[in-house]
Amino acid sequence: MTTFDPMQLANVGVRNLQPYQAGKPIEELERELGIRDIIKLASNENPLGLSSKVRAALQDTLAGLARYPDANGFYLKSKLAKKFALDTAQITLGNGSNDVLELIARTFVNAEHEVIYSQHAFVVYPLVTQAIGAKGVAVPARDYGHDLDAMLAAITAKTRMIFIANPNNPTGTFLTTEAIAAFLAKVPENVLIVLDEAYSEYVSEAERAPSFRWVQQYPNLVVSRTFSKAYGLAGLRAGYMVSHPAIADLMNRARQPFNMNSLSLRAAEVALDDDDYLQQSVAVNEAGMQQLVNFCEQHGLPYIPSRGNFLTIEVGENAGEIYQQLLHAGIIVRPVAGYELPRHLRVSIGLPEENEAFIQAMKEIIANLCKSSR
Amino acid sequence: MTTFDPMQLANVGVRNLQPYQAGKPIEELERELGIRDIIKLASNENPLGLSSKVRAALQDTLAGLARYPDANGFYLKSKLAKKFALDTAQITLGNGSNDVLELIARTFVNAEHEVIYSQHAFVVYPLVTQAIGAKGVAVPARDYGHDLDAMLAAITAKTRMIFIANPNNPTGTFLTTEAIAAFLAKVPENVLIVLDEAYSEYVSEAERAPSFRWVQQYPNLVVSRTFSKAYGLAGLRAGYMVSHPAIADLMNRARQPFNMNSLSLRAAEVALDDDDYLQQSVAVNEAGMQQLVNFCEQHGLPYIPSRGNFLTIEVGENAGEIYQQLLHAGIIVRPVAGYELPRHLRVSIGLPEENEAFIQAMKEIIANLCKSSR
Repeated sequence: MTTFDPMQLANVGVRNLQPYQAGKPIEELERELGIRDIIKLASNENPLGLSSKVRAALQDTLAGLARYPDANGFYLKSKLAKKFALDTAQITLGNGSNDVLELIARTFVNAEHEVIYSQHAFVVYPLVTQAIGAKGVAVPARDYGHDLDAMLAAITAKTRMIFIANPNNPTGTFLTTEAIAAFLAKVPENVLIVLDEAYSEYVSEAERAPSFRWVQQYPNLVVSRTFSKAYGLAGLRAGYMVSHPAIADLMNRARQPFNMNSLSLRAAEVALDDDDYLQQSVAVNEAGMQQLVNFCEQHGLPYIPSRGNFLTIEVGENAGEIYQQLLHAGIIVRPVAGYELPRHLRVSIGLPEENEAFIQAMKEIIANLCKSSR
Repeated sequence: MTTFDPMQLANVGVRNLQPYQAGKPIEELERELGIRDIIKLASNENPLGLSSKVRAALQDTLAGLARYPDANGFYLKSKLAKKFALDTAQITLGNGSNDVLELIARTFVNAEHEVIYSQHAFVVYPLVTQAIGAKGVAVPARDYGHDLDAMLAAITAKTRMIFIANPNNPTGTFLTTEAIAAFLAKVPENVLIVLDEAYSEYVSEAERAPSFRWVQQYPNLVVSRTFSKAYGLAGLRAGYMVSHPAIADLMNRARQPFNMNSLSLRAAEVALDDDDYLQQSVAVNEAGMQQLVNFCEQHGLPYIPSRGNFLTIEVGENAGEIYQQLLHAGIIVRPVAGYELPRHLRVSIGLPEENEAFIQAMKEIIANLCKSSR
């Protein structure tokens, strides 16, 4: 008879965590429903698949995989520094941007602090906050997006960190350069601002914030980026954070030495130079976004205007049922009830034919729902 | 004029951390000394290179890399469960075993706790302990290995976790099944025991502890394993922990959802079945160990008898200089002064010709040192 109760031994923050719900993997749906040719529009992945240049480069790297990765990521940091006019000492590499987002929190936040983020913002912010045992402060959204004035007003003496996602996931809302600049000027220096730009490559250069330059001006600003979206490397795990060198130095102490694997280091290097792929990603996204927006407009479905590679559509109180029906039609989208959006579904932009398949399936589902409700 | 001081904002544990010093990468030495054909015997990597079966399997996985990995690692967990007669609910996958070692600490240990490990034990144990802000208790080693009686005696009301590495890195020391069994029976149930078996595949089956069966008997025991050594996947990052299902459930809440990448998941699945490669790894290791031991015996160099894929040799007070001279000869080994072993160098077992190159270089270095000291 054992008295062992790991729940009582676990840190309080961890006890109360709900694990992250990933988008349903294609293989899982295959196993569950026994269907094939599944379309996944659930996880904001790049529908183009791996860049052919990256693929070729990885071939050469395979042979060396019995060796540990370069713990310092020398080549990738050098390439990032050159491309974005940074000092390599400002860069922290991560196993996806999830890794650096967690790392910055673990480095600076403890159980006595408060962390501010927006309602409907990326779930990793509350997750890492709770895991540390800090108090999360979710500021009500305005028009589904960040209410920066309200977030400023939420700052207290205990606030150590503020997460801002721009564009935001899962809503796709976007803050202008002017709005963020005004916000940065008002945040006290002892509060770290984490600007998560996972989707920034989908924003036109004219509208993209000069975030790396801001890091020079505001040492309490850090900016995260990912290779999982426009660069198409979600499966390899590659992300990074740009910060004051002293912040990078501290994160470097806390990170796992081999957090990035050898293939993701190499792939990210090559992807950074692969402008054709990046431009194609953006073009495919813009066309697909238009396809989905047109469908919504034609069918009177409200949606949240999005600057990411996804569109979050208000399908109504039947969202859960529609999600299930889409699964049976072989199409995986993302329910967002966990984001306090129970009437919405988030649809990642796919290839034109994938978007079209989603649209056709939705038309049928809507028609059947109308029939059955008559 | 800025008052910003990230060091003051950082968590105390992180402030005092020294970053992990990885083995010198081959490319780094090439850059620094401008030499080629470098032999790396520094990081306990598998000298065989990637298994050809794994390599072939990865080809098929490359195309899907723009998709996120399976966050639940369904296939790899199923395969591990089948091979080792486990329940999949007992398994936590990690980005290398480093990841699960950190995760178990972050899940259960906080700043009020003490964590016990041995002098000369793997540096990740003190690193993760300090990062959390907990008190690390390093118990003096006995004959370079774990002194289990002293570790038992070090347990206090504040002790939450004990790390045991078997075989230990960087000393290669080994605890018998009987010794660990007696230890497990004496540890209170509210203290978690982390048995790190990164090198267990190099131990003969007859001598290998029934650690996964012990997990059934002692719910406060968790066991970590890695694919970085005998399985040859260091560059891909793959490891796992076997525990009570309730512990795995808690770790699952705290882990990063995509901590393992798509290629490492696939590679580990294939590697688990590749018995030929594993047997060859062990055979190459045994032959190479004999080669290095013979050299030490012939030259009267003391060494720590090792059950891992490395030999830690007492080269004396000139260890730092010998390390440098080896670098200039194109051979990377590992200084272990950071492990309180300033007179030793740790040499990973390489291919026969790599071991021989090390031996020849050492002979020259020793001869020159003798000459210059005359």
